[in-house]
Amino acid sequence: MAGSSIGRIFKVTTWGESHGRAIGAVVDGCPAGLPLTEEDIQPYLDRRKPGQSRYTTKRNESDRVQIMSGTFEGRTTGTPISLLIMNSDQHSADYSNIMDRYRPGHADFGFDVKYGFRDYRGGGRSSGRETAARVAAGAVASLLLQQFGIHVTAYTKSIGPVEISSFDREEIQKNPLYMPDAVAAEKAAAWLEKCMTEKNSSGGVIECVATGMIPGLGDPVFDKLDADLAQAVMSIGAVKGVEIGDGFRVAASSGKDNNDGFHTDENGQIRPTTNHGGGILGGISDGADLILRCAVKPTPSIAQPQKTVTRDGEEVEIEIRGRHDPVIVPRAVVVVESMTAIVLADALLAGTTANLDQIRRAWNR
Amino acid sequence: MAGSSIGRIFKVTTWGESHGRAIGAVVDGCPAGLPLTEEDIQPYLDRRKPGQSRYTTKRNESDRVQIMSGTFEGRTTGTPISLLIMNSDQHSADYSNIMDRYRPGHADFGFDVKYGFRDYRGGGRSSGRETAARVAAGAVASLLLQQFGIHVTAYTKSIGPVEISSFDREEIQKNPLYMPDAVAAEKAAAWLEKCMTEKNSSGGVIECVATGMIPGLGDPVFDKLDADLAQAVMSIGAVKGVEIGDGFRVAASSGKDNNDGFHTDENGQIRPTTNHGGGILGGISDGADLILRCAVKPTPSIAQPQKTVTRDGEEVEIEIRGRHDPVIVPRAVVVVESMTAIVLADALLAGTTANLDQIRRAWNR
Amino acid sequence: MAGSSIGRIFKVTTWGESHGRAIGAVVDGCPAGLPLTEEDIQPYLDRRKPGQSRYTTKRNESDRVQIMSGTFEGRTTGTPISLLIMNSDQHSADYSNIMDRYRPGHADFGFDVKYGFRDYRGGGRSSGRETAARVAAGAVASLLLQQFGIHVTAYTKSIGPVEISSFDREEIQKNPLYMPDAVAAEKAAAWLEKCMTEKNSSGGVIECVATGMIPGLGDPVFDKLDADLAQAVMSIGAVKGVEIGDGFRVAASSGKDNNDGFHTDENGQIRPTTNHGGGILGGISDGADLILRCAVKPTPSIAQPQKTVTRDGEEVEIEIRGRHDPVIVPRAVVVVESMTAIVLADALLAGTTANLDQIRRAWNR
Amino acid sequence: MAGSSIGRIFKVTTWGESHGRAIGAVVDGCPAGLPLTEEDIQPYLDRRKPGQSRYTTKRNESDRVQIMSGTFEGRTTGTPISLLIMNSDQHSADYSNIMDRYRPGHADFGFDVKYGFRDYRGGGRSSGRETAARVAAGAVASLLLQQFGIHVTAYTKSIGPVEISSFDREEIQKNPLYMPDAVAAEKAAAWLEKCMTEKNSSGGVIECVATGMIPGLGDPVFDKLDADLAQAVMSIGAVKGVEIGDGFRVAASSGKDNNDGFHTDENGQIRPTTNHGGGILGGISDGADLILRCAVKPTPSIAQPQKTVTRDGEEVEIEIRGRHDPVIVPRAVVVVESMTAIVLADALLAGTTANLDQIRRAWNR
Repeated sequence: MAGSSIGRIFKVTTWGESHGRAIGAVVDGCPAGLPLTEEDIQPYLDRRKPGQSRYTTKRNESDRVQIMSGTFEGRTTGTPISLLIMNSDQHSADYSNIMDRYRPGHADFGFDVKYGFRDYRGGGRSSGRETAARVAAGAVASLLLQQFGIHVTAYTKSIGPVEISSFDREEIQKNPLYMPDAVAAEKAAAWLEKCMTEKNSSGGVIECVATGMIPGLGDPVFDKLDADLAQAVMSIGAVKGVEIGDGFRVAASSGKDNNDGFHTDENGQIRPTTNHGGGILGGISDGADLILRCAVKPTPSIAQPQKTVTRDGEEVEIEIRGRHDPVIVPRAVVVVESMTAIVLADALLAGTTANLDQIRRAWNR
Repeated sequence: MAGSSIGRIFKVTTWGESHGRAIGAVVDGCPAGLPLTEEDIQPYLDRRKPGQSRYTTKRNESDRVQIMSGTFEGRTTGTPISLLIMNSDQHSADYSNIMDRYRPGHADFGFDVKYGFRDYRGGGRSSGRETAARVAAGAVASLLLQQFGIHVTAYTKSIGPVEISSFDREEIQKNPLYMPDAVAAEKAAAWLEKCMTEKNSSGGVIECVATGMIPGLGDPVFDKLDADLAQAVMSIGAVKGVEIGDGFRVAASSGKDNNDGFHTDENGQIRPTTNHGGGILGGISDGADLILRCAVKPTPSIAQPQKTVTRDGEEVEIEIRGRHDPVIVPRAVVVVESMTAIVLADALLAGTTANLDQIRRAWNR
Repeated sequence: MAGSSIGRIFKVTTWGESHGRAIGAVVDGCPAGLPLTEEDIQPYLDRRKPGQSRYTTKRNESDRVQIMSGTFEGRTTGTPISLLIMNSDQHSADYSNIMDRYRPGHADFGFDVKYGFRDYRGGGRSSGRETAARVAAGAVASLLLQQFGIHVTAYTKSIGPVEISSFDREEIQKNPLYMPDAVAAEKAAAWLEKCMTEKNSSGGVIECVATGMIPGLGDPVFDKLDADLAQAVMSIGAVKGVEIGDGFRVAASSGKDNNDGFHTDENGQIRPTTNHGGGILGGISDGADLILRCAVKPTPSIAQPQKTVTRDGEEVEIEIRGRHDPVIVPRAVVVVESMTAIVLADALLAGTTANLDQIRRAWNR
Repeated sequence: MAGSSIGRIFKVTTWGESHGRAIGAVVDGCPAGLPLTEEDIQPYLDRRKPGQSRYTTKRNESDRVQIMSGTFEGRTTGTPISLLIMNSDQHSADYSNIMDRYRPGHADFGFDVKYGFRDYRGGGRSSGRETAARVAAGAVASLLLQQFGIHVTAYTKSIGPVEISSFDREEIQKNPLYMPDAVAAEKAAAWLEKCMTEKNSSGGVIECVATGMIPGLGDPVFDKLDADLAQAVMSIGAVKGVEIGDGFRVAASSGKDNNDGFHTDENGQIRPTTNHGGGILGGISDGADLILRCAVKPTPSIAQPQKTVTRDGEEVEIEIRGRHDPVIVPRAVVVVESMTAIVLADALLAGTTANLDQIRRAWNR
């Protein structure tokens, strides 16, 4: 059934396959009056672009975003913002060896069972290319959040066995792996060289932080802020785990060590004293920085032969040809940031109605 | 805004606070014809019931479920199933010390910011008591799945530093900690004794497995099966992390080791050969067992004094009185199972019809 | 599939059949802080109660509403409000003659085709009894709207051939037919006597007006305010037509006569000069009174024999026994009012986010 | 908030303004395997195209639809179908006189109140141009329904005082007013000449019939089939009333005359004997032809001066320049047909599966 939309108020619908004419997103529910041009969105897409380094494919995806609707004189009008990205690189020549074989680690088998029919070129809807549409929509969300002082930043925390051991925000955009630690970035690069030599690939961990958080975002039961974030981030193809704050480490912690007390800061604002909870308590933001991490699996398309079956169940070997990144993590960094921003924008807009006095103030009644 | 519903086809809405008259769930979209009585649901609730052991509170929550609508002559009619559980233990006497103090590790502060107003008795909607409604609804989902040969089972994987090292399915229901390893269960019990002595509490990990999975469940983009599961499980109050299959371990794995190849089994059925993916590839089930884990934080209500503030920002100490479990995990086991079942039932029906026989015909089961 | 919920922000889910234990509604998304007690809701239900006059059945439906959750100390908390109404009159004795015969004008046949199974006692979910849950939820919506100066009032415009020719708001609650014209009410009563004598029934028209409308409510495309109202009102069982403002009369009008010009009133407020549009232009409220009408079909349960078939297709006669109103209109008046209020409350709460400045004001940023 | 999507399973999202770069629709949830090319969709759009006759504007809207995603080798893949229509005629020259004046009968004032900001060129999202996207999506719905033997046809029932008095299906496509009665079409043409001479405009009534209906479509409470149809059709800009079957005439009818009895036809199929209900009873289809009518208001843009105000509240006269149809009805015929088809496709799939063959199997068609 329909499953290409996310968000309740700030609602994003994506469409498009890797080998169709174009991909795109419709952002419905963005408030009127937000300054928004193609130049505002493009830098976000550029961060996802392939060919940025040795570790990302060199396909010529120019990924120019076009705003097809929803703005007038450089500002949003409150109506749906249609974002379009043409597909430029559509030579379908080399898919003959995979069109009827199920690639290990890919959704091919599930798609065939579900739909009985599949666009086998490049993974179709499950392709990483679909995430470009998420990034375009996420850019709108990020720009909206910035109007309220909320800034979302994601970066690479680890690649294979190499984890960051220092944090320099400036460094993130300086190395092709988006790591906030130059030394770790060099070690990770060496690790990826080794993976490539071995026709193998690597996984990693992405971390995302939102500063300037407004307390009170999120709803108490199924639409908890962390629940919505978990869905949004887990919906990124290669993600296999999501955690908030101390995440899985809480399992071995104690109430005394894990509880975040409160104090009043110098401005008289109530603030959490520590941040084991990652900025969310009981599904509602508490004003501390939002902290989220996710695990990204190794690129499933590897050049060495693998065992699989054909559509008819014949057992065969498969060799994935073509250019494939040895690691998904760096290009997924901005996707994680985008999904986080989309959820926060939705929670921000949903939150305006919680309290009768807030509503009265909004309506001047 | 409204955030108390989950599911698109099999849609569950919960209501109720720990200290109101009752709590309940409305299950809308369950197919007609499913055999369903109160006796079918009660055992699921009994597994969540407090007072089962030294490690769960002894509050007298009888938790008797009543079916108020949606069945006729012992079968569902396709109309909303209203499930009601009266609250029996509502003495509000001992909340004076917390009514205007924000408990560390609880949603009190977020609630006050969001709603400007809060039922301070027992946590309101954020109370663990709300999960009884989820379990009642989850029982319906589990019973529906069983009609298709899908069985969902959750259990305790670790408590504090104690992890299971063997797996005996029969053992799960035999010890009060719901661990499939009797030796680990004894060690964990000793660990909890220590926590209680120290007026402290412990976290843990819950694992959930679904066998008999039908391939093709889940939608390819935002409503991926793992994304919907992540939301559902993260929406349980104390959960801080969710992972599928190898989860966070994929970050340090390689494509070669992590990819699940395919083979044809003795019945001519295409099957994944390994199961690093936990039964889901690209958001769609592949027929392997579904495997999911989540991290549960230590009980935030501990008997030792903690630093916090009042509603007015005055810095104070708080002592949580009353009976509180030293660990949330055992009672959350059936809640994790319930949320998993609800998501699976929804995904199953998302490709199907109003009538159980039609569904069976469509799925050939 | 699930179809028992309405509203996006102010979200109402109803459950229950005429012959189950109870019926109810869950109102999710009502802002915190609204004063609300059972005594506030009960008068709305009393207006729907049968046995008010010769023309409504004398079944003993006491229809006492209980608030099971969502309020604390007499005000809403922002969490789901569960409203429960026990079914008191459940003697099932006289359904033997209809259990396997499809009543003309009822949903029996459709239900059997759809679900393959049906609670034949009293119409199940299609029973007029389900509307009591709508009225309870609608009362909450009405009380919320009153906080913003919006008042919704429905009344009977015609019964059979008898139409009102004057309008006295006070009169509405004075006669059992809820007509704002005492003379017409007497004529309509005489008409209904005739219908009863002939073992026949009558239709009619209900009109609903909302004063104090805030301009800017409604969304421009599919969730136009009039579109949402049309769904809500058409979803009342016996309604076969809905119109806004001049409604079907616009077909024979001209642009010159139908257009509503604008002027500035004594307070400097821009106002529509006429109101052919019924308070809605292009799906968005314009500040004029909302005017809506709907056509209600004659009670299908009539005492004279009718031709129909059994479940097995055998052609038979059916005689509907028991007490049935000769007209649905009077009891449906408060239901129309309720559905209108629910849609307006939802549009009001959805509307707070349209404009970035409004949001900033709400958040004080 | 977001309001640009309709449908639960077959979900349509439209975007675009009359004077942006393009308009479009995303159809999410269409089953895989449906034959679909641009040539299949184009004829539907051509019926909406202006410049077809003296009574429709001669703007050069070529309205060529492009399928940007969701098909492969001429069949749908189950993924979102993105439909794009470039805007070709965007000279914005003559909007100076209306940019700060509220046109009577248009949504200008509501938009400004709601969004504080508006694309004043050509009505923006409220423009009739948005309906081209609905027609493109509706074509997909119609083609899907045809696979199940359901055919949807709309036509003009009346224009101003001229109503059809005979019905010839072939005639509908032969005259520019889409009337099934050639004599009435001529009379209506004369009436429109008169309107144009007087710088005035006319309203009318559109009727829509679906044959081959499957019984059991629709859900019993808020998502009744007629309720969803009422929303869908009322969401067309100029529609002010919707009715099903006998519609408003039921108000003056009796139970005896209005009830549709049942019989068994020559194939042993249970069928309604009459069709006052328009194919829907209690919100569920009964297998009789679906019959729906709506009232369309006169074109609000008329050439004669009208009284209105500016954004600042100054009372002024406004003269609408440019080419405007004297009647909206003929171009709206295919829009009504499209909205009806979208709702029927959604209701059909609400009980069914991802794959066209599975659906056929479930429905035995």
